[in-house]
Amino acid sequence: MKLGLLGCGTVGGALARLLESQRETIAARTGVHLVITRIAVRDTGKSRDVAVAADVFTTDTMSVVEDPDVDVVVELMGGVDLARDFVGRALALGKPVITGNKALLAAHGAELYAAADAAGVDLLFEAAVAGGIPLMRPLRESLVAEPVTRVMGIINGTTNYILTKMTEEGASYEDALAEAQALGYAEADPTADVEGYDAGAKAAIIATIVYGAVVAHDEVHHEGISSITADDIDVARRLGYTIKAIAVVEGGESEADTSVAVRVHPALVPLDHPLASVRDSFNAIFIEGDAVGDLMFYGRGAGGGPTASAVLGDVIDAAVNLTRGTSARIGSLVTAAVRPVEASSSAYYLRVAVIDRPGVLARVADVFGRHEVSISSMEQHGLGDEAVLMFITHVSSEAAVRATLDELRGLDIVTDIHSVIRVVGEA
Amino acid sequence: MKLGLLGCGTVGGALARLLESQRETIAARTGVHLVITRIAVRDTGKSRDVAVAADVFTTDTMSVVEDPDVDVVVELMGGVDLARDFVGRALALGKPVITGNKALLAAHGAELYAAADAAGVDLLFEAAVAGGIPLMRPLRESLVAEPVTRVMGIINGTTNYILTKMTEEGASYEDALAEAQALGYAEADPTADVEGYDAGAKAAIIATIVYGAVVAHDEVHHEGISSITADDIDVARRLGYTIKAIAVVEGGESEADTSVAVRVHPALVPLDHPLASVRDSFNAIFIEGDAVGDLMFYGRGAGGGPTASAVLGDVIDAAVNLTRGTSARIGSLVTAAVRPVEASSSAYYLRVAVIDRPGVLARVADVFGRHEVSISSMEQHGLGDEAVLMFITHVSSEAAVRATLDELRGLDIVTDIHSVIRVVGEA
Repeated sequence: MKLGLLGCGTVGGALARLLESQRETIAARTGVHLVITRIAVRDTGKSRDVAVAADVFTTDTMSVVEDPDVDVVVELMGGVDLARDFVGRALALGKPVITGNKALLAAHGAELYAAADAAGVDLLFEAAVAGGIPLMRPLRESLVAEPVTRVMGIINGTTNYILTKMTEEGASYEDALAEAQALGYAEADPTADVEGYDAGAKAAIIATIVYGAVVAHDEVHHEGISSITADDIDVARRLGYTIKAIAVVEGGESEADTSVAVRVHPALVPLDHPLASVRDSFNAIFIEGDAVGDLMFYGRGAGGGPTASAVLGDVIDAAVNLTRGTSARIGSLVTAAVRPVEASSSAYYLRVAVIDRPGVLARVADVFGRHEVSISSMEQHGLGDEAVLMFITHVSSEAAVRATLDELRGLDIVTDIHSVIRVVGEA
Repeated sequence: MKLGLLGCGTVGGALARLLESQRETIAARTGVHLVITRIAVRDTGKSRDVAVAADVFTTDTMSVVEDPDVDVVVELMGGVDLARDFVGRALALGKPVITGNKALLAAHGAELYAAADAAGVDLLFEAAVAGGIPLMRPLRESLVAEPVTRVMGIINGTTNYILTKMTEEGASYEDALAEAQALGYAEADPTADVEGYDAGAKAAIIATIVYGAVVAHDEVHHEGISSITADDIDVARRLGYTIKAIAVVEGGESEADTSVAVRVHPALVPLDHPLASVRDSFNAIFIEGDAVGDLMFYGRGAGGGPTASAVLGDVIDAAVNLTRGTSARIGSLVTAAVRPVEASSSAYYLRVAVIDRPGVLARVADVFGRHEVSISSMEQHGLGDEAVLMFITHVSSEAAVRATLDELRGLDIVTDIHSVIRVVGEA
């Protein structure tokens, strides 16, 4: 089975080495003998630690896709427009494609899934969400019949690393970000990670796999972590929570409802919830199902080795399917209604600065009550003339919480609303 | 696609209901329409909350297996000898079999896998290990090429529940066991759970799937949790660990070494290790791979809903494969050499009672040193004339630790060796 690689950076190199070391095992276990016959790169002169003949490399990417000596195409080049052309062409030629390109799938997934279905070949993308964690296959196959009600994921390693440093070392957001940048976990411009766009693209893919829902990238509600302070983390810890950047994907609110909700935001997670123990740059996906109960998949969301592991699993799957003349089931997709975040419900943590005088708490509590936002726990800390009130609410509608905040902001006794953070994962 | 169920207890009933509620979804996503046509039970007169016609039930189990109106056989009856006959007959007839029967696989797995391979049909058993957690499929498929070095699992919910109660509520082993029995988590005779036989059977299946190694049940080294005391848990917590019942499966010690190690024992787990946060009756499997790094799969290891979810995933897989004329890859198995526990290495926690007099620590430390057991941390607590010494060792050979303990027991200053527990999961 002959493989053509588009791109040979960190992941491509790791894939070539892993394939080399595991070739005999793969052949023994699956009957498939895998060989890399063509690799498209930008610079054929660059030295690479990859055990293939020099004439395997070319700068002509389309020639790799179209080479009759390539049975399976592995797209590791990144980017959207060119990748779309190459992947589309490969599928049209009846060649299975493996990709880890979440931006490509978020932008053109529906078109490419349809092309793969029409051609009857595999388009596999285990590496696109949560790196090395086997997630797409269990969701697509093991859980295809599971009534999944909600998926909550820590699917951006950069933000989890930053929040872990802030939590465990008391670092400020700025210092933790700088450290993540120094280690190469965060880009010079960290916007895609810290504002939730990267996690949003992955969440949209999860919505497609779990609910068959095509979700456009701009339909995902994003809130970043840059406003989280060391104070928030301290208070959360004292109340029994840690703060994580979470992607939430929810199905319909009834059996007949095919709409989905997809949002990315920081959240307080109870310390005894499995997601709370996911540290550093690790990823984890927590799944709530009516039959199966709670599941979690944990592992490395990025890096050459983990990503190559996911890609190789897909390559073997596609190769075996190709020898059998079958392909993975993508199933029918629908352009789903995405519920606006205003229609969602959540518990909330709110930190409100007030003037410290008699009757203030009663007036604030009255605002919550009139908007039917029920309070689960409350703490007050005096600070001279001021006091800070901390509330955790029961699950309330977003609209009611927003109306409560609007009214609080208008009160003469309220000097500031420091923090408004959702709470997830309560028993 | 017509299903025949052997057995209709908690799991069978949950499966029938889940199938009923998800039939349309399954048909839409996979193109397969699933119907239960025959169910073998002991008592056809018993009332069951299952929406099938009364004439679907029979007491003649073999008639279900052999019925031409049954395409896929789902074995949920339990037991070994009869189940082996029925499963063997179904495979011989070219019918895929789904089973969650770990005792059957532990006793006759090699024979049944070979029968399935010879017939070219599926024998799937996702539910046999870790209940509802998708584990077998990711291991067999996603990770088929991953160089897995070690698998560590909390795969017995009963012992995890008991240890959680002891840890979080300070309960004694006896009280926690009684509570587990009252809740139905533990049997009246809890031996299979608390002495590690249940986990051992599952660990043997994991060894087969990960390493292609056929491991007989009696080749698994078992140590139970009944000797763990509240004191051990307290001390462990203070040193930064929690105590869990762990199944360990390790591959060869070099690339050419095809032997495996399989053992079940209590172990100290660092509090920041993902396995440490697995509470109550939940299960989790932690996988260490050379390429993918650390992975963990978490969820419900038992119960009607979770088990039915796993079985249904397998049923759909088998049904889809049957329509395509393919079957899952089992791969070639080898009767592996199982390394004796004496050949293993581990870090250890040791609690040694000594007479409190000058020079005692030096004499005890000297014994460790002469056997080349290196000490990672040590604490001493005085208790009048006696003192208790607590050691955590670096990774040492089992033989060296045993020799150290033998010599310590012979010293006049050592009054007792309270605890000898392995330590796993250190960074």
